[in-house]
Amino acid sequence: MIIIMERNATKVQIQRVIDLLKDNGFEVRCNVGNIHTVIDAIGDKTTVTPGRIAALDGVKEVKVIREPFRLASRDRKPEDTVIEFPNGVKIGGNNKPVAMVGPCSVENDYAGLLRVAVAAKEMGCEFLRGGAFKPRTSPYDFQGYGEKALRYLKRAGEETGLLTVSEIMDASDLPMMLDYVDVLQIGARNVQNFKLLQAVGRCSKPVILKRGLASTIREFLLAAEHIMYQGNSKVILCERGIRSFDSAFTRNVMDIASIPVIKKYSHLPIIVDPSHGTGQRYLIEPMAKAGLVVGADGVMIEVHHDPENALSDGKQSLSIPMFKDIMARINTFNNRLHYEKTCLSANVK
Amino acid sequence: MIIIMERNATKVQIQRVIDLLKDNGFEVRCNVGNIHTVIDAIGDKTTVTPGRIAALDGVKEVKVIREPFRLASRDRKPEDTVIEFPNGVKIGGNNKPVAMVGPCSVENDYAGLLRVAVAAKEMGCEFLRGGAFKPRTSPYDFQGYGEKALRYLKRAGEETGLLTVSEIMDASDLPMMLDYVDVLQIGARNVQNFKLLQAVGRCSKPVILKRGLASTIREFLLAAEHIMYQGNSKVILCERGIRSFDSAFTRNVMDIASIPVIKKYSHLPIIVDPSHGTGQRYLIEPMAKAGLVVGADGVMIEVHHDPENALSDGKQSLSIPMFKDIMARINTFNNRLHYEKTCLSANVK
Amino acid sequence: MIIIMERNATKVQIQRVIDLLKDNGFEVRCNVGNIHTVIDAIGDKTTVTPGRIAALDGVKEVKVIREPFRLASRDRKPEDTVIEFPNGVKIGGNNKPVAMVGPCSVENDYAGLLRVAVAAKEMGCEFLRGGAFKPRTSPYDFQGYGEKALRYLKRAGEETGLLTVSEIMDASDLPMMLDYVDVLQIGARNVQNFKLLQAVGRCSKPVILKRGLASTIREFLLAAEHIMYQGNSKVILCERGIRSFDSAFTRNVMDIASIPVIKKYSHLPIIVDPSHGTGQRYLIEPMAKAGLVVGADGVMIEVHHDPENALSDGKQSLSIPMFKDIMARINTFNNRLHYEKTCLSANVK
Amino acid sequence: MIIIMERNATKVQIQRVIDLLKDNGFEVRCNVGNIHTVIDAIGDKTTVTPGRIAALDGVKEVKVIREPFRLASRDRKPEDTVIEFPNGVKIGGNNKPVAMVGPCSVENDYAGLLRVAVAAKEMGCEFLRGGAFKPRTSPYDFQGYGEKALRYLKRAGEETGLLTVSEIMDASDLPMMLDYVDVLQIGARNVQNFKLLQAVGRCSKPVILKRGLASTIREFLLAAEHIMYQGNSKVILCERGIRSFDSAFTRNVMDIASIPVIKKYSHLPIIVDPSHGTGQRYLIEPMAKAGLVVGADGVMIEVHHDPENALSDGKQSLSIPMFKDIMARINTFNNRLHYEKTCLSANVK
Repeated sequence: MIIIMERNATKVQIQRVIDLLKDNGFEVRCNVGNIHTVIDAIGDKTTVTPGRIAALDGVKEVKVIREPFRLASRDRKPEDTVIEFPNGVKIGGNNKPVAMVGPCSVENDYAGLLRVAVAAKEMGCEFLRGGAFKPRTSPYDFQGYGEKALRYLKRAGEETGLLTVSEIMDASDLPMMLDYVDVLQIGARNVQNFKLLQAVGRCSKPVILKRGLASTIREFLLAAEHIMYQGNSKVILCERGIRSFDSAFTRNVMDIASIPVIKKYSHLPIIVDPSHGTGQRYLIEPMAKAGLVVGADGVMIEVHHDPENALSDGKQSLSIPMFKDIMARINTFNNRLHYEKTCLSANVK
Repeated sequence: MIIIMERNATKVQIQRVIDLLKDNGFEVRCNVGNIHTVIDAIGDKTTVTPGRIAALDGVKEVKVIREPFRLASRDRKPEDTVIEFPNGVKIGGNNKPVAMVGPCSVENDYAGLLRVAVAAKEMGCEFLRGGAFKPRTSPYDFQGYGEKALRYLKRAGEETGLLTVSEIMDASDLPMMLDYVDVLQIGARNVQNFKLLQAVGRCSKPVILKRGLASTIREFLLAAEHIMYQGNSKVILCERGIRSFDSAFTRNVMDIASIPVIKKYSHLPIIVDPSHGTGQRYLIEPMAKAGLVVGADGVMIEVHHDPENALSDGKQSLSIPMFKDIMARINTFNNRLHYEKTCLSANVK
Repeated sequence: MIIIMERNATKVQIQRVIDLLKDNGFEVRCNVGNIHTVIDAIGDKTTVTPGRIAALDGVKEVKVIREPFRLASRDRKPEDTVIEFPNGVKIGGNNKPVAMVGPCSVENDYAGLLRVAVAAKEMGCEFLRGGAFKPRTSPYDFQGYGEKALRYLKRAGEETGLLTVSEIMDASDLPMMLDYVDVLQIGARNVQNFKLLQAVGRCSKPVILKRGLASTIREFLLAAEHIMYQGNSKVILCERGIRSFDSAFTRNVMDIASIPVIKKYSHLPIIVDPSHGTGQRYLIEPMAKAGLVVGADGVMIEVHHDPENALSDGKQSLSIPMFKDIMARINTFNNRLHYEKTCLSANVK
Repeated sequence: MIIIMERNATKVQIQRVIDLLKDNGFEVRCNVGNIHTVIDAIGDKTTVTPGRIAALDGVKEVKVIREPFRLASRDRKPEDTVIEFPNGVKIGGNNKPVAMVGPCSVENDYAGLLRVAVAAKEMGCEFLRGGAFKPRTSPYDFQGYGEKALRYLKRAGEETGLLTVSEIMDASDLPMMLDYVDVLQIGARNVQNFKLLQAVGRCSKPVILKRGLASTIREFLLAAEHIMYQGNSKVILCERGIRSFDSAFTRNVMDIASIPVIKKYSHLPIIVDPSHGTGQRYLIEPMAKAGLVVGADGVMIEVHHDPENALSDGKQSLSIPMFKDIMARINTFNNRLHYEKTCLSANVK
């Protein structure tokens, strides 16, 4: 790390920093400028944290050079992480991007859910998603049907051969959820619910981790690190829009560039969710394609058998006919991108 | 609510909205403009939610007029909520603003904690705060000493006569925490951890709820509503800064105006935390005063017996001598504000 | 417009609003709810502005239903605006997206500029861009070579047959700039420099208007409206990233979804600038494609003959070999998108 | 500056950076870490700019240690800048904070303006402010009465003995404005209109510079630097709120902490504008006091003789009776703060 001292730092203050670092095994070089003194320190930051140095008198700023995520970092593991499911579906690397579709909430209507699942299967999608526990801003909104919803989801998955995804909101629900779903999802509002991250980190089920509304890319990767640090390295990131100053036309601003940025700095797969990212049906197709063209490993799209009567997120859900229409075009686009990418990588070899 | 139809909405679409509303007992008036049709609907939004109307074809926007928080709203309860503790300390209303001080984390040094507590008592503060479970962005940072820290906190509270505050991170810790602390705190990162909000909502202990980094004021009050909806109305809000585009000189931007805004729309007490709000020692005194002058019911300040060796947040913690110096001036300021406020309200009567 | 009265608005206050509206020729309907009174008013908002109503006692909020931009609105002009240049190049509508490339600043090296121009022509680009007047955050940074740079730009344009684009920073430079460039550009920092918008609005030269760092989509379209209101309807919008809370990996966050949003609400063409939008060379290709796939009418890319010695924006500029490599792939992508779009629209007919 | 090389930077790339720096007279030290190489360079950044180094291959990041503003920096000039007017009024340093009041726009009603001016004088204010040229988001809004407004403003200033303030929007208006006003104002939307900054920098009239909606503190001080660099050091900064994700209850978020931050890093005076900062009458008094308590050198408040009929910003303008009421309390507060500050500094001496 680099320690920049205040302009008026005293010799005693500077020496205090150097001593503390040296006492903890750091290699230290001190550069006295005509305005600021700068100290370069190389060593193990778990013995003396940057925060502790920053608290010393006379220190203006501590700059850590190495990215703080380690297990999630491509420096540690240059090759892409690929997550493989028992049925052969793979996410990440050079595999064809996947599609995860389904209703925001699984409702009290199994037939409706099955209709969505059948359409998803028909369009070549790999995953059925649906909420059982819903994080809702207001306590007066529908909170989900809980275990019953999970039963429906599992059954629809089994009938169609789709893998299932559902959100976990509390660590205590983990044993139950493991019985029902193939992929756990952690929602944007829980991206820094560290107890929950740790809990899913202790199981071996793949986890979709959604970016928080105010997560920086670094914080997002550190949230993945919390999961991986407990032993579970099957983390699938999901870009779903961040909060900005303009919400007149879209719920959030989708940070499409975060996908290639994360691909550069991390080996984890990342998917894109244009339904939550925009909150608008007419933007789902273009923004799904934008995510795919920059390298996303999959798309997540909300589909409901009857959006007008959906108990949540109807406004941004596609009806089944709309979905088929849009998904057909996304598939064509996706196939061509995938063909080029794999041919290209084959040619390069 | 007001429903604004798309410019090209058809008569059938308009009628569909009207019928759905009328079927659910709404009183409906339809105003056909030369561009947009606007429908005013008065009725019970739990039967037909605004989101469901928004999902109908031809609807451009649904505007809800009434604020979505109810129990937290001053409309429902015009008088200020006052939270009273067994030892007679009161927060809210016309009571003198309180002070909550202590280290970010309770560390493995009871003597150090006690020194802070004694100084806090000496300066007239009412609460000792200290973390036992620490939400940390990185898994490599210190995560807190858990129950041992709570034991220390309780003991220091008992020795000095201070009430105690500590953060809860997981619903499963609730029974244990109830044994040790007088006030539960929910941190900024958990402001939309609804399971945790519900859990503390089912106990009767006062709860400090910190504003999230990206919480709007409305969402912040809805988070309080989640707690109150479960039966616990002893919620103390805490403004501690929001995320902005500039973090070069301060960690967050303190939204000081949110204090009088919340006072206008809600009856709940609200305190201010300049330590987390700015992350800079030199800003603690001015920003504490800024919070008090606009009506905050208390201040929360990080104090450590040895900030240079603190395991977390040393940079923004005050040492004991600094704290005494600053707190003396805050007390003078606070006393005068309180005197004027109570004299004024006495004169008005 | 819709006027929502405060919960405790008096009858006199309500009547005052109604009278003012009626006196100014508005058709008014008043809906008395059990909490709020809502007034619908249909009429000419230039006689009584929403702001004036908002200032009346007892008014909580005034909601304007119709978008405030008019000339820029697709409601007024459903067909896409196409801007045609004397050499036959067209921007907008179903025309193939264009490419505008060149250095951030035109430097004191005509040969270098010409090399970029020749490469641009070779790759099929239509426009050569280069700055003569540079808006720089610091007065100590290079401010541009002024008229000399414009002379170079024009000459390179003429030698290669490329159209030229350069930024105008002050209305007093307009007459001179009209002699040298085919397209005027207004930079992000001047998006609400209304005097400059009005000045370019009074000429007939096409204008590229860049979105401001903190412009909402509505404000961005109103900035275009300022130009159009003066008579110049040849406005080309440009998405170039907005300011967010995370600038660790990219300078700005590109709001890719703004492109299809603007296409829905406005008939104006819009291009995408991934160089400024991300500030990173490795993101230019993916983000250019992301912009094109959602419907952008062109891309703007910074290319320098010697980025390591560029006087500005070297970090985000492509060298000529990099540019040729990337542009070839963008061209292939662009051609296919264009082919599909035009075939599709032909088939639909 | 500190240059951090990419993890995989080659020896040739590292040497290239070192050579370029040394060739330009920098003193260079190179620290080879086990992951990143870090180069410390001390020298004159006008010969090799940080941006040029950043463009070199293999460079990850260039960190400039010294703040980029120089003339505005307290490092260069430790004592506070005090701006003195011919009538003896002073802004900055230990002088009592001033008050600038008046209508958003000067309207076609001299008597009304005079009533505001008389009230301002009566309440001890020093400045009359009023707009002649109005920057308006929409071209359909009132744009100001121009020179006629300036004539009224000057006359009202002369009749009451108040100094006058008005906004300049275009450099070409400067000669005329110098005849009419005592202080020029540059609005938030023009904070990076560098041509205008340079123009006012070449005159000797005091300038109020408002912070932009998306200006970082560093950019704000660099905008001041543009003015000072041209020779005019009479710059008065103004905090008036920044753009955030929440505009439901306030127009902007006032960054109150920016005031003590700027006081620490710059010697320039800074005032606070709660009218624009919040857009709400009920927040003017508390936010004015919050600004003063953290060290603002003055307040700017919108007052209109008839807010209900104001042509702009009526919603946030105070009527004359409201103003007198609020100003009396602000004066009391201000006097006490000033008394303490000056006594304190006297005692310290």
